[in-house]
Amino acid sequence: MTALSNHTSGFATAYGVDPLSRSIEQQFNDLFEKEVAVFLVSTGTAANSLALATYAKPGGAVFCHEDAHINVDECHAPEFFTAGNKLIGIGGEHGKLTPDALRTAMDKVPDNNPMHGRPAAVSISQVTEFGTLYQLDEIQALADVAHSRNVPLHMDGARFANALVSLDVSPAEMTWKAGVDVLSFGGTKNGCWCAEAVVFFNPGDAEGFEYLRKRAAQVFSKARFISAQFEGYLKDDSWLATARHANAMCTRLADGMRDIEGVRLPIKPEANELFPVFTKEQAARLEAAGAKFYDIPADFTSEDEVFLRLVTCFATTPEMVDEFLTHLRG
Amino acid sequence: MTALSNHTSGFATAYGVDPLSRSIEQQFNDLFEKEVAVFLVSTGTAANSLALATYAKPGGAVFCHEDAHINVDECHAPEFFTAGNKLIGIGGEHGKLTPDALRTAMDKVPDNNPMHGRPAAVSISQVTEFGTLYQLDEIQALADVAHSRNVPLHMDGARFANALVSLDVSPAEMTWKAGVDVLSFGGTKNGCWCAEAVVFFNPGDAEGFEYLRKRAAQVFSKARFISAQFEGYLKDDSWLATARHANAMCTRLADGMRDIEGVRLPIKPEANELFPVFTKEQAARLEAAGAKFYDIPADFTSEDEVFLRLVTCFATTPEMVDEFLTHLRG
Amino acid sequence: MTALSNHTSGFATAYGVDPLSRSIEQQFNDLFEKEVAVFLVSTGTAANSLALATYAKPGGAVFCHEDAHINVDECHAPEFFTAGNKLIGIGGEHGKLTPDALRTAMDKVPDNNPMHGRPAAVSISQVTEFGTLYQLDEIQALADVAHSRNVPLHMDGARFANALVSLDVSPAEMTWKAGVDVLSFGGTKNGCWCAEAVVFFNPGDAEGFEYLRKRAAQVFSKARFISAQFEGYLKDDSWLATARHANAMCTRLADGMRDIEGVRLPIKPEANELFPVFTKEQAARLEAAGAKFYDIPADFTSEDEVFLRLVTCFATTPEMVDEFLTHLRG
Amino acid sequence: MTALSNHTSGFATAYGVDPLSRSIEQQFNDLFEKEVAVFLVSTGTAANSLALATYAKPGGAVFCHEDAHINVDECHAPEFFTAGNKLIGIGGEHGKLTPDALRTAMDKVPDNNPMHGRPAAVSISQVTEFGTLYQLDEIQALADVAHSRNVPLHMDGARFANALVSLDVSPAEMTWKAGVDVLSFGGTKNGCWCAEAVVFFNPGDAEGFEYLRKRAAQVFSKARFISAQFEGYLKDDSWLATARHANAMCTRLADGMRDIEGVRLPIKPEANELFPVFTKEQAARLEAAGAKFYDIPADFTSEDEVFLRLVTCFATTPEMVDEFLTHLRG
Repeated sequence: MTALSNHTSGFATAYGVDPLSRSIEQQFNDLFEKEVAVFLVSTGTAANSLALATYAKPGGAVFCHEDAHINVDECHAPEFFTAGNKLIGIGGEHGKLTPDALRTAMDKVPDNNPMHGRPAAVSISQVTEFGTLYQLDEIQALADVAHSRNVPLHMDGARFANALVSLDVSPAEMTWKAGVDVLSFGGTKNGCWCAEAVVFFNPGDAEGFEYLRKRAAQVFSKARFISAQFEGYLKDDSWLATARHANAMCTRLADGMRDIEGVRLPIKPEANELFPVFTKEQAARLEAAGAKFYDIPADFTSEDEVFLRLVTCFATTPEMVDEFLTHLRG
Repeated sequence: MTALSNHTSGFATAYGVDPLSRSIEQQFNDLFEKEVAVFLVSTGTAANSLALATYAKPGGAVFCHEDAHINVDECHAPEFFTAGNKLIGIGGEHGKLTPDALRTAMDKVPDNNPMHGRPAAVSISQVTEFGTLYQLDEIQALADVAHSRNVPLHMDGARFANALVSLDVSPAEMTWKAGVDVLSFGGTKNGCWCAEAVVFFNPGDAEGFEYLRKRAAQVFSKARFISAQFEGYLKDDSWLATARHANAMCTRLADGMRDIEGVRLPIKPEANELFPVFTKEQAARLEAAGAKFYDIPADFTSEDEVFLRLVTCFATTPEMVDEFLTHLRG
Repeated sequence: MTALSNHTSGFATAYGVDPLSRSIEQQFNDLFEKEVAVFLVSTGTAANSLALATYAKPGGAVFCHEDAHINVDECHAPEFFTAGNKLIGIGGEHGKLTPDALRTAMDKVPDNNPMHGRPAAVSISQVTEFGTLYQLDEIQALADVAHSRNVPLHMDGARFANALVSLDVSPAEMTWKAGVDVLSFGGTKNGCWCAEAVVFFNPGDAEGFEYLRKRAAQVFSKARFISAQFEGYLKDDSWLATARHANAMCTRLADGMRDIEGVRLPIKPEANELFPVFTKEQAARLEAAGAKFYDIPADFTSEDEVFLRLVTCFATTPEMVDEFLTHLRG
Repeated sequence: MTALSNHTSGFATAYGVDPLSRSIEQQFNDLFEKEVAVFLVSTGTAANSLALATYAKPGGAVFCHEDAHINVDECHAPEFFTAGNKLIGIGGEHGKLTPDALRTAMDKVPDNNPMHGRPAAVSISQVTEFGTLYQLDEIQALADVAHSRNVPLHMDGARFANALVSLDVSPAEMTWKAGVDVLSFGGTKNGCWCAEAVVFFNPGDAEGFEYLRKRAAQVFSKARFISAQFEGYLKDDSWLATARHANAMCTRLADGMRDIEGVRLPIKPEANELFPVFTKEQAARLEAAGAKFYDIPADFTSEDEVFLRLVTCFATTPEMVDEFLTHLRG
């Protein structure tokens, strides 16, 4: 907010050629230790959809986890922005694709058989939709499968910072050094108003992206309202600090649950999302105390249990966590 | 071919207002014992895609079997013509959807939650992609699920005639009387050059379809080249005769296989498609004799077996069947 | 900015059901003296494209001025979001459509002839792209032509406030009372960071718009960042004050030019845009002093002249205007 | 029809890899004296739309004559198949584009300004929509303008044969030797049932076209029904003979009109289309005798006149022409 305020006064050229936008581009180059092509957009759905649209083809298919955000939570925007490419959802434990499952799915779309279409991209989420992480070698293995079919690997990094600090690796290591070709770099879930970026690690792939973005109604006359957010976000590593905090709160929450009878943690949390099983009684008590969540259908819960998704963030305090645990204990 | 030749000479008004086209419309009304809206197109993919596009919505989802032709064999044309509606493939034994599986899948796309989109249609194939059939009450049960969410039931009837003669029911019984709202009525697989039709059982649904079809490049200046095919196809019930013949050849083929060692028929054939398991030796022998087929990946075959798809048609003769069986026996 | 800051602290429910969003809806109802359906988006292109997409049809055509922003300045986003509806640009003096020209253009797209498609909407800009205005009766006359073909009248109100204060009428009078069905209500050009709204005067037309907007990647998890801008924008009529100021600065600029030799004003300014003809010498002098503008091709300029577009805004001061005039005078 | 009948019996592999299809490809290579990539489709709208879709880009614009078939007679299919590229119609006498007018229109879509989009293709019709022809050097001049902006020149050759025999040049001379990159080669208007082809003169441009065509529902399981038509069409130069005949009938009709009082021919016919001005009395007399035509709005006709379009074809006889003239004379 402070960064945004700093850019309220004064005049600036419209449509993104202001000095701030140029400075942000340099910051992304530094961050990724490589010349990248970076484009700011206003929502994660826009970042994902336009990243995929860049590589879309007639009859193209995007391979992703069946629970991927792009597959089930974006109102089919990826299908729309790619002019009808198909998203092929693949099963996989705890939100993660395996190279074998990916290869099997891609083999069903062989080369030179137009009936079945053709691969256009592979997409993974880091953090995944179940709060888990891909290790660097796992990313590379999936990238290898994608590249063996001549399509890029996209990473949905809506929680990029949370993954980074959890793995304790560099942005370069978790992306292009592990075979990632294009990244949706999210700021919104980690503290920004609305600040997302598409980062191409092969800048040549971005030829024409300016047109794709403008046609998608994602070009802002006052572009500095997004770049200013990124300026504040990246300054003094504040984005890593907020992510570290969110992850720590998640760990605190998980640790606090472990000794509570009736609570199960079927998925090991690795970032800032927790997927516990509570008894219905526990859930009711929390709701009575003001908590809001919804039940995720799952085949590993009994009739007396619910499976929930809890997210901690930059603004979660230890006190909030402890209060939640108190109500959970009853 | 004869019907087509009959319309070669003489002049006719361009673009589908010729007397023959009008006559075809009346024939479809008679066939279905109801006033229908019928539109001729040139491919099954066009019929399916445009039928679904009629009901498409922003964020819409089409629910179908995971092996449905629209889902895996049409180069994602349905996604394209619906401007990016998602096809949600659902598992089900022997190519068939069950009401429970359909309901579960549709429940994941609840009302009033734009993130997940919304239902646009349900689609089934009759004959299914594994040569099986829906009984009338099974169709009705799926229609009920679709209608409970206010979306239509589409039937991909690429092999409509084969299903009809196998079930020994009327066209009306197998469609609108069982809850079907729109039908892709196929002629090509049963003897036509290229003759497919989209049939709307609620003619009001077809408002605007003329524009959809013209925009899809499926309006023919010499429309009688399709209507003439249907004229010949429907005349004297010749379409039912060819379908009956194709089905009979399939039965002959299946019956002939039953006593051959090494052959298994995991799916009971109900129309003109057969999905046998052969030993690799048998398959090799058939290929050496000139047969052409391809191996379908399956988890119920051993290393020494292949799973194949065989189709009989209006032009298959008993001699061909017997020759095939001779080679199979070795 | 202050309004935005007020909403920085504290927690709010994600995805637009926060109390602030509800309050904004009420404010729009009050503003337009009618229950409207209002949807916030982040760019003018998004507002226009989604407003038009709401009424899009297969084969649909949108009739607009040939110089309309939607026709030439939005990278064909309207064509994209409408899945390929055609924009039919119509000539007209000083950026304005006439009912006769509109009717002639629409007559070329008659009913019941799919070859030519069919009308989907009519769109006008208020303020127009040449800084002129439609009077209320002129709007009504265009609405009548649109409605006679059963399509809505859309108003691109990127400069809605500037038009309103210039005509000195109410928001209701300039929209639905004059036949407007849907409005792109712009805040960005009048002081907001990025705040645009689509306003439907027949709320029933907006059925399904939530899906259209989500699929367009225009739904913000922190929706209050847009609604807060509108809160500040509308509060105490500050939006009208900024518009009045911008218009006054334009008048001051125009008045100051009238006595300068070599300057011509072929189009009477009516809001905050000015389209003067300068001598090339004058233009060069201004550029040397730091002004930035570009030459608009025009057939009414001599070889020694340039035709320019100048825009005043909420932040333009009298001193700036006078300094500009000083350089112009030389 | 005979060619089609010859391929009715016997078996052939489905989906276009039959020997006949291969033979047609070779015939096109021979015809154009060059290795081309040729794809058969079923309508002219499909040929045009898919040719243009091959070169479509986000924000792309196709420049064509304002009266071009693709611009006004295809229900906006080109916009749809290009996922929303804009068609920019340009004025020009007698249906013809001039290099100057084309350059002026393209200059309004400059490089590196995403707001205005970018050029994707230039399209001309040969024969034009007003029955006129481009000379070879005129085609080359338009190709030069297109190529200077790095976009291809498309030729809508719905009446390709009529143009060819009128200019008395070779297929190669009228296409790639004059700068044409891709051609819609029409057979339907010159005697086929439904036979159109897209011909790429730089075969590399066609990479991926198989997917585009399949996704467009333009792949036929019995592809030989189109290739057989082309076989008959091209055999023994019968296509040139039918075109020559149609053109001759048009000349006979024009010549016969010249001495009839009240008839004017404002556009010199160059192929098989005639655009005469008749008195209303003459028109009424013809209609009473059974002729069917419609009045084209024109600003050069008096109140007592009508402007009409007459087309002769392969099946028009001298007797028909003379009978028409007899009624015209009254």
